[in-house]
Amino acid sequence: MSLPLRESEYAVTLKNDRLLRALLGEPVDVTPVWMMRQAGRYLPEYRATRKQAGDFLTVCKTPELACEVTMQPLRRYAFDAAILFSDILTIPDALGQGLYFSEGEGPKFHKVIRSAADVEKLPEVDIADELSYVTDAVSVIRKELNGTVPLIGFSGSPWTLATYMIEGGSSKDFRIAKQFMYDNPEAMHLLLEKLADSVTDYLNAQIRAGAQAVQIFDTWGGILSGNAYREFSLNYMTKIVSKLQKENEGRRVPVIIFTKNGGQWLESIADSGCDAIGLDWTTEIGDARSRVGGRVALQGNMDPTILYASPAVIREEVATILKSFGSGEGHVFNLGHGITPEVNPDHVSHFVEAVHEYSEQYHR
Amino acid sequence: MSLPLRESEYAVTLKNDRLLRALLGEPVDVTPVWMMRQAGRYLPEYRATRKQAGDFLTVCKTPELACEVTMQPLRRYAFDAAILFSDILTIPDALGQGLYFSEGEGPKFHKVIRSAADVEKLPEVDIADELSYVTDAVSVIRKELNGTVPLIGFSGSPWTLATYMIEGGSSKDFRIAKQFMYDNPEAMHLLLEKLADSVTDYLNAQIRAGAQAVQIFDTWGGILSGNAYREFSLNYMTKIVSKLQKENEGRRVPVIIFTKNGGQWLESIADSGCDAIGLDWTTEIGDARSRVGGRVALQGNMDPTILYASPAVIREEVATILKSFGSGEGHVFNLGHGITPEVNPDHVSHFVEAVHEYSEQYHR
Repeated sequence: MSLPLRESEYAVTLKNDRLLRALLGEPVDVTPVWMMRQAGRYLPEYRATRKQAGDFLTVCKTPELACEVTMQPLRRYAFDAAILFSDILTIPDALGQGLYFSEGEGPKFHKVIRSAADVEKLPEVDIADELSYVTDAVSVIRKELNGTVPLIGFSGSPWTLATYMIEGGSSKDFRIAKQFMYDNPEAMHLLLEKLADSVTDYLNAQIRAGAQAVQIFDTWGGILSGNAYREFSLNYMTKIVSKLQKENEGRRVPVIIFTKNGGQWLESIADSGCDAIGLDWTTEIGDARSRVGGRVALQGNMDPTILYASPAVIREEVATILKSFGSGEGHVFNLGHGITPEVNPDHVSHFVEAVHEYSEQYHR
Repeated sequence: MSLPLRESEYAVTLKNDRLLRALLGEPVDVTPVWMMRQAGRYLPEYRATRKQAGDFLTVCKTPELACEVTMQPLRRYAFDAAILFSDILTIPDALGQGLYFSEGEGPKFHKVIRSAADVEKLPEVDIADELSYVTDAVSVIRKELNGTVPLIGFSGSPWTLATYMIEGGSSKDFRIAKQFMYDNPEAMHLLLEKLADSVTDYLNAQIRAGAQAVQIFDTWGGILSGNAYREFSLNYMTKIVSKLQKENEGRRVPVIIFTKNGGQWLESIADSGCDAIGLDWTTEIGDARSRVGGRVALQGNMDPTILYASPAVIREEVATILKSFGSGEGHVFNLGHGITPEVNPDHVSHFVEAVHEYSEQYHR
């Protein structure tokens, strides 16, 4: 596979650029919508591809399969964006930590970080090179999208990656990671510095390969106190944002920061230089807009469990969130977290249709 | 066992009433401190009592054992309050749901609520009578405390109890409970109404038996959207607060509401009529004070995982929180959530001592 694709190989004009416009606060006809984890286990065709591939990581590491599952939700629903199919933990894997998935237990690492020496021993790797399967997937997907909707690239945040690398997987209370942070702040900062450099290189490689917006998933920033969040998580996301390539293919590449349970820190997140903040469902989007809406766009924020409710309830909740945001620009509709495997795919149609249908009145 | 104890059997004057004063915003010499789950598995003597009893529920249901474990942390540390040893799920158990604990999996119920009919079939029980083992424990503990420090009673919030009753235990995303709420709001409200009545009766029985302050644990309110939180959780806690006995033994009985992950809704919680709001560690206590500090006291809010760090770090964090709250009254020091089993008991001494030592300067 030859990389990167030349610009002429992309469709010159993006047919649907609502997402990019909304992320920059520019006028749109209707509110754009996509879903975190839209290529996921709730779709039977996704489960079939994954079964055929054998496992999740094989889908991530095979650009044609990653492209196939990225495209699947777009064939069913009128989403305004595709999001690269990958995992947030590709970087620690590229750093030699040995990512694997054990059924029902989530991601795990063969190696863990438990000391300053472990941090210092982390290899210097060329992330773009090591994760070429991801940038290859970006190129293949862009070709396949053929200018219909933009492609979002992403990475885990340094803090979120660090928690997994220290704990060796997910955790209930992240006590090993927090103890490391409190007892060895210098070593933690060194680790986060290294990860911030890797995330920067990784996202820039995705942008060069064709990602038209990028999102930083700070899944576990919200387990910290406000002070610790700013020092150990937001601080590094801010550094990354400042070093990302601002433009590609003649358009600005917007950056979204999503800190789960970060609703108390929106003002600080808006100071990071990001273009948009992802909100989980615990934050009232209207309140969030009055706090930071003039400075950044907002993405979110329906509780994903509402997709288990009846179509009427789903439509009503979409209407409530649109009304809470109100008239004007700077809103990308999304869930407040990823869609879960047991959702009925028909319910997603109601969700997407309702966003487009009910939002028109707010964009006149 | 004869109940309730006559007033003359209690020590007439409370030797240390810092907790009650701080909860009402009255002057204290130093900031009072206690810990959620202070009678818990981090203490070897607790593990011994529990082992001897056979299981956790036997400790809860045997007043002398509940008293013994309630007293254990007070023998080690200079805590300014005792908290009744019990479980938040005693009410659903009294309503016939069949509470049990399976090792490593947390609480479970033999019966679950899955329909409006299930809600209607819930038996009408005299909660004070059904849970006399709890009020008996309160009386025994008060006698044992002998006026040294006040005793805090508690209950789970209606919403939190409902989630367990519907799910049949704890849950990662509470989707069954939320689906029930979104698809059957009337049935959910009926369930919450019944639970609010039970919680009111339960807390009033604890107050009559001698609880000198009460806390409502809304462990799972924070998984809701702001609107849903107000409608399905806070609404019922507000009803309870309005119906609680305001005074006993000639003193006001303060009410604390603790909604984990409720930091975005402090203004609304302060409107409930409670005397104090419990904060988890994600909220800056200084910010919380400027938002609601004139109206209610604040309780919290050190991250419990900091107890895994070195004594120097623990002391520093205590100092940071005290400084963030600043001078003046209305602060009860606590963790932002319960202490966890693996904490070194020696670290708790540093925590408690630091609160008393460093807080004096803020109360001159």
